Amino acid sequence: MTQHSDSPARGHSIAALAAALGGRAEGDTGLTIHRAAEPAAAGPDDLALAMDPKYAAGLALGHARAAMLWEGADWQALGLAAAIFVPRPRLAMSGLTRTLDPGPALAPGIHPAAVIDPSASIGIGAAIGPFVVIGPGAVIGPRARIASHVSIAEGARIGADALILQGARIGARVVIGDRFICHPNAVIGADGFSFVTPEKSGVEEIRQTLGEREQIRAQAWIRIHSLGTVEIGDDVEIGANAAIDRGTIRATSIGAGTKLDNLVHVGHNVQVGRDCLLCGQVGIAGSARIGDRVVLAGQCGVSDNIFVGDDVIAGGATKIFTNAPAGRVLLGSPALKMENHVEAWKNIRRLGRLFAQVAELKEAVTRLGQKD
Amino acid sequence: MTQHSDSPARGHSIAALAAALGGRAEGDTGLTIHRAAEPAAAGPDDLALAMDPKYAAGLALGHARAAMLWEGADWQALGLAAAIFVPRPRLAMSGLTRTLDPGPALAPGIHPAAVIDPSASIGIGAAIGPFVVIGPGAVIGPRARIASHVSIAEGARIGADALILQGARIGARVVIGDRFICHPNAVIGADGFSFVTPEKSGVEEIRQTLGEREQIRAQAWIRIHSLGTVEIGDDVEIGANAAIDRGTIRATSIGAGTKLDNLVHVGHNVQVGRDCLLCGQVGIAGSARIGDRVVLAGQCGVSDNIFVGDDVIAGGATKIFTNAPAGRVLLGSPALKMENHVEAWKNIRRLGRLFAQVAELKEAVTRLGQKD
Amino acid sequence: MTQHSDSPARGHSIAALAAALGGRAEGDTGLTIHRAAEPAAAGPDDLALAMDPKYAAGLALGHARAAMLWEGADWQALGLAAAIFVPRPRLAMSGLTRTLDPGPALAPGIHPAAVIDPSASIGIGAAIGPFVVIGPGAVIGPRARIASHVSIAEGARIGADALILQGARIGARVVIGDRFICHPNAVIGADGFSFVTPEKSGVEEIRQTLGEREQIRAQAWIRIHSLGTVEIGDDVEIGANAAIDRGTIRATSIGAGTKLDNLVHVGHNVQVGRDCLLCGQVGIAGSARIGDRVVLAGQCGVSDNIFVGDDVIAGGATKIFTNAPAGRVLLGSPALKMENHVEAWKNIRRLGRLFAQVAELKEAVTRLGQKD
Repeated sequence: MTQHSDSPARGHSIAALAAALGGRAEGDTGLTIHRAAEPAAAGPDDLALAMDPKYAAGLALGHARAAMLWEGADWQALGLAAAIFVPRPRLAMSGLTRTLDPGPALAPGIHPAAVIDPSASIGIGAAIGPFVVIGPGAVIGPRARIASHVSIAEGARIGADALILQGARIGARVVIGDRFICHPNAVIGADGFSFVTPEKSGVEEIRQTLGEREQIRAQAWIRIHSLGTVEIGDDVEIGANAAIDRGTIRATSIGAGTKLDNLVHVGHNVQVGRDCLLCGQVGIAGSARIGDRVVLAGQCGVSDNIFVGDDVIAGGATKIFTNAPAGRVLLGSPALKMENHVEAWKNIRRLGRLFAQVAELKEAVTRLGQKD
Repeated sequence: MTQHSDSPARGHSIAALAAALGGRAEGDTGLTIHRAAEPAAAGPDDLALAMDPKYAAGLALGHARAAMLWEGADWQALGLAAAIFVPRPRLAMSGLTRTLDPGPALAPGIHPAAVIDPSASIGIGAAIGPFVVIGPGAVIGPRARIASHVSIAEGARIGADALILQGARIGARVVIGDRFICHPNAVIGADGFSFVTPEKSGVEEIRQTLGEREQIRAQAWIRIHSLGTVEIGDDVEIGANAAIDRGTIRATSIGAGTKLDNLVHVGHNVQVGRDCLLCGQVGIAGSARIGDRVVLAGQCGVSDNIFVGDDVIAGGATKIFTNAPAGRVLLGSPALKMENHVEAWKNIRRLGRLFAQVAELKEAVTRLGQKD
Repeated sequence: MTQHSDSPARGHSIAALAAALGGRAEGDTGLTIHRAAEPAAAGPDDLALAMDPKYAAGLALGHARAAMLWEGADWQALGLAAAIFVPRPRLAMSGLTRTLDPGPALAPGIHPAAVIDPSASIGIGAAIGPFVVIGPGAVIGPRARIASHVSIAEGARIGADALILQGARIGARVVIGDRFICHPNAVIGADGFSFVTPEKSGVEEIRQTLGEREQIRAQAWIRIHSLGTVEIGDDVEIGANAAIDRGTIRATSIGAGTKLDNLVHVGHNVQVGRDCLLCGQVGIAGSARIGDRVVLAGQCGVSDNIFVGDDVIAGGATKIFTNAPAGRVLLGSPALKMENHVEAWKNIRRLGRLFAQVAELKEAVTRLGQKD
């Protein structure tokens, strides 16, 4: 297996890299690296990533001449010619990977096999790939990179520096801020899932009665169309095959700085705040409101019409059925405060013993009763 | 945030709208509105939607001259010039949004950059976008609207008035009824997920032994091809990035009037009845049968080969592992009757106290025993 | 509903079919069938599939002249002219369906509306559909079948005999083995979901404190780019709308023989072993490692950075938060050993009775105490 990044080679000196990452360089700082690599797989042109002492053994196996190291490491003893030290290694990974990322190969200009409506407006410096379709009145900001097979429907407005990847679908009149990143085959602005029956439906009934149903009626579902759009702030990233539905009247909205992972579902009218992380396969049902800086781990679910406060963090597969106050840490299905969830499952695991104890007690009490 | 629908302006008189919605108009019924809006965001050309007294404050903030109001509202006191009253507001939303929805911008006729096999048959009045591919022998009914990048494979047959949106994939020989709506990047008719090992596999073994495994064998999975198709009734809607697999021999089928939300997965051979709602990210494993009018909320799961009866309603993230009788209301993972689920979690939450009580009892009994 | 496969008619003699399936033919073995069908729906040209006595009634309803039958069946008494008997019917289904599958209609050669970079290398015998895009330096093995709208980015390398279906996205520098099958709209090689805050984030904090949070800081997420690729072994199949992210430095990898169902999510850096089955909507969070021959049923989840041993089998919707040793059978959320999960829910269901018993005991003990 390849243990280093396969990005094409571009040279960076250790000195320049360290400066770019806000760290310090030691040793032969003029040494040039072309790629980053795991320690054991690093070659002489790679920067080995060894920001923890546990990677020392890996360094010995590999052939790196330079490494980004944990604070206090003795690069000379590790057999290196140069080293970079950074205050917060995980943060340095951001700068390093950005520097080394070649980005997608997209030729500048508009590919002749793109179909762009004459009334659309494309900002300067755009790169638009083959088989892209841009509809009437759409407005795309400067320096957009739009890969093959993307469709951007009528009246959509997208800010500067967008990167929209293969097969992504941007719906009509959707509004998106600057520095938008959209991964392949994501769908933004499909119609909401909203239906009504002529008479009160079974779902409406059990919501009122908490499970009781008087009479089941055969009824067809009638569509409520989605007239609203989707509004997305600056610096938002949307994962592959994710789906964000338009609102019924007002817009579904995603706040600035929020990131959605692959296969995330955001229903109609949902309001997601700023700087949230919605991890893989998270689902937010219609009209829910999510605060700022909320982190929902993979496969979390949020019921319709509820409110999740600022700074809530939910672990994997947490299912949130009721309002969650700001700052709460949640786990489980149904979601409980983290400590209550842990306690609940500790208790459940001990139930066998409890049943046995109660049976013994019963016997003991019976014996005591008989003694009298 | 935009608080009104962004659909292009088309005028509708209050009188005409009220009539179309089966309601009554009051005041200046000749007044023309162009869009629907939330009360606080409504402008003078919008119809404010205020079908509940709680929206009265919003009306005061907005600039609506006309509103759809709750029964008994005093439109004049609310400062309006005209009002619409309807018997079932949620139902009226259907007619209103249908009236105001401009629909996708699709030029009539077949775009020159579509690739349509000469043996395919396209009904009259079709609008087919750029980069659409329609295979040999496919039959598309009249008035179809097929957006860019859609593929419809060989021998597929689709009824009248279809709306198939960007990048949707319709597989070979799939059969679909009238008034079909398919959202972007949905996949109908991929192969089923069906594999077999030369000898009995671990999965087959633990199904029989409920968890016991004699001997673990290394084996490769051999593919069972899907010869069946997918059959979809009239008035079905499929969400963005949803996936419906073809059957092995018989067809996977979706009954008339059933709606699937985004990212729903329907496995091979599954039979879904009429007028069901499968909400976002629901998954139905292979060969399961779902009755009529079943509602599965977001992230529900149904195990393979089981049966879910007519009119079953399951709350969000309910995981159904065993047959569910008709009319049952289910919650939880594993799915329980709603009242049992509520009771189970009430009990679990009280376990800490129960453990304490049993400990106290034990002490008391010990003391009593010592007294004798 | 159609109860037989709709594949175009190609004749196969009963004798030839039985030989191909490693079974034996009886009766008029020269009889020719064109399709497979369920017993009740079979016509005179179909092979009825009745490998269990419960299908005898179906055979009586249908019009099959030939059937694949359960061992010991009396084909003459069932009114058939010919029969096939096989040692392992489910395995025979593999050979039978492969024989009868017509495969997708893809014209040989490269469609004129495909855009293939001159530096890409396409193996001999390829069939490449309309609107396919293949980037600079990509290498596609011999006999590839690539359906419409597929994109294969710069530097990707795909082995022999690939079948890549409509709208699938293969990212830059992804490496894939032989006999790859990729279903429509799957995305392989999107960027990983990896972000960092300038200071320690709330997520990092609660992981260390198990839920305690000192101070909530407003911070923006900074992107860690994905420099790694995806590496996929031979004989891998990927479902519709699935998504596999590239690694940060090393490659995300999928071992040979592993199959992924629809809407599966595989995060960055994940290592999946050989011959695994990841069923519909399974999600594997970043940097998790999955052993060989692991079977995760639909909607399972695996947390980031954990290890799931060889031969683990997890039932539907199992959520695996901690390392799982080899061979374990898991159920539930949180995942427990199957027998513990079953026991836990048996106990939970009996809690109402336990609470009542404890209340009675308390009363009895109080009475006993008062007696003294």
